Amino acid sequence: MLRNFKLVVAYDGADFHGWQVQPGLRTVQGLLSDAIARVTGDRVLPQGSGRTDAGVHALGQVVSVAISSPIPARGFLIALNDHLPNSIRVMKATEVSPDFHARKSASAKTYRYRIFRGDICPPFTARYVYHHPYPLDEEAMAIAAAKVIGEHDFTSFAAVDPERGREDVEVSNVRTLFCSNWQRHDSELIYTVRGSGFLQHMVRNLVGTFLLVGKGTIKPSQISDILAAEERSANPGATAPASGLCLVSVEY
Amino acid sequence: MLRNFKLVVAYDGADFHGWQVQPGLRTVQGLLSDAIARVTGDRVLPQGSGRTDAGVHALGQVVSVAISSPIPARGFLIALNDHLPNSIRVMKATEVSPDFHARKSASAKTYRYRIFRGDICPPFTARYVYHHPYPLDEEAMAIAAAKVIGEHDFTSFAAVDPERGREDVEVSNVRTLFCSNWQRHDSELIYTVRGSGFLQHMVRNLVGTFLLVGKGTIKPSQISDILAAEERSANPGATAPASGLCLVSVEY
Repeated sequence: MLRNFKLVVAYDGADFHGWQVQPGLRTVQGLLSDAIARVTGDRVLPQGSGRTDAGVHALGQVVSVAISSPIPARGFLIALNDHLPNSIRVMKATEVSPDFHARKSASAKTYRYRIFRGDICPPFTARYVYHHPYPLDEEAMAIAAAKVIGEHDFTSFAAVDPERGREDVEVSNVRTLFCSNWQRHDSELIYTVRGSGFLQHMVRNLVGTFLLVGKGTIKPSQISDILAAEERSANPGATAPASGLCLVSVEY
Repeated sequence: MLRNFKLVVAYDGADFHGWQVQPGLRTVQGLLSDAIARVTGDRVLPQGSGRTDAGVHALGQVVSVAISSPIPARGFLIALNDHLPNSIRVMKATEVSPDFHARKSASAKTYRYRIFRGDICPPFTARYVYHHPYPLDEEAMAIAAAKVIGEHDFTSFAAVDPERGREDVEVSNVRTLFCSNWQRHDSELIYTVRGSGFLQHMVRNLVGTFLLVGKGTIKPSQISDILAAEERSANPGATAPASGLCLVSVEY
């Protein structure tokens, strides 16, 4: 009989080509799959709550995996960490009911984006932030961030989808954001966003757009127009660099 | 006329083969020398306050370098950082008198060694600590650390010197430690040592020996005997891993 496990996984994204397994590349899913195989003998693909891009970090990525091995949860956690590089750590392992699925069962996720505002970014911080020492209207950015709270179609903030235009694919880009705000912590300007779910590149595109507001290129009030357009091309914001982004936690 | 500069440099040692320039290897001194050459046109070897080993970090390494370029200090700092990888940052650049030498003029240095005591070391911390989750008598370690304060011959804590036995080489291994203590900060046990100077591997060998005290293999009182022996072979302590060590500051 298969036993289903929920793993909470932290990783330093700078070391990997993102979450999703890719032949010949060092990915978090690939390394986790290898470690599970070595520990349990089961060759399975662990499911993440979502894919993180290359360079994106995780404090609390959640992973589900079904194994046949009778290994206890505590032993599974220790053995996995023994077989993983230091830049990936399984922080928690719990046996859960067979219907738990890391992605499908998720009710909310929280991401954090860190911008380092000082002139010189310390080498110990550089891997985990986007260094932007130039002037920004932080107040305008805070107003803009509040505009996306609630239920919206976020197509204007999603990566352009190669599937688009195919009539048979009907995917909703409607998501609900419960929280979206910027806060100052010393030299860092930190964006925190909690939502029901996120489209590909959505957080980085939100940050890229808020940066345009900070630079004065667009006004906070234009955020609503960009949302309403439901077109990525209606959004002049660039995708902010991956290094600043971290998946903080996933709720169920 | 040459102008002498004092640079305060921070680096993430995990990215480099140590401080000292070595042909074909990525070293801090080598990359700094390249950056100085590109910025000023002067091909010079910057002098560090001391060599740090591969994997050892620096918050405040001090470097002296004489250049002929008329570049102002502020511009020199910005241009150097533009030509260095993110894992090396020049934090400060000051023009100083011609007789200033980063190593010869130093009056004291402070090092810090971080041991992570928790069961699971977060991936964002792993590069900067030695992960040791096993039992340690931290009180005994604190007593042992105090035994090395003062002026001593530290041969028992130095790397075995290949020059030894050569009659013509007369080098003193006497150094003075002004401060040597262990402190707990949450999940970390941190050793701080401030001294007039340090022999090669000295801090890592002190930590390795204090770890033996923590494990109960040797008693704090034996530290004085080990010092008095003035022989590395009289010290059963191993050299603690480089990742936990950081050169915090250098005084003049």
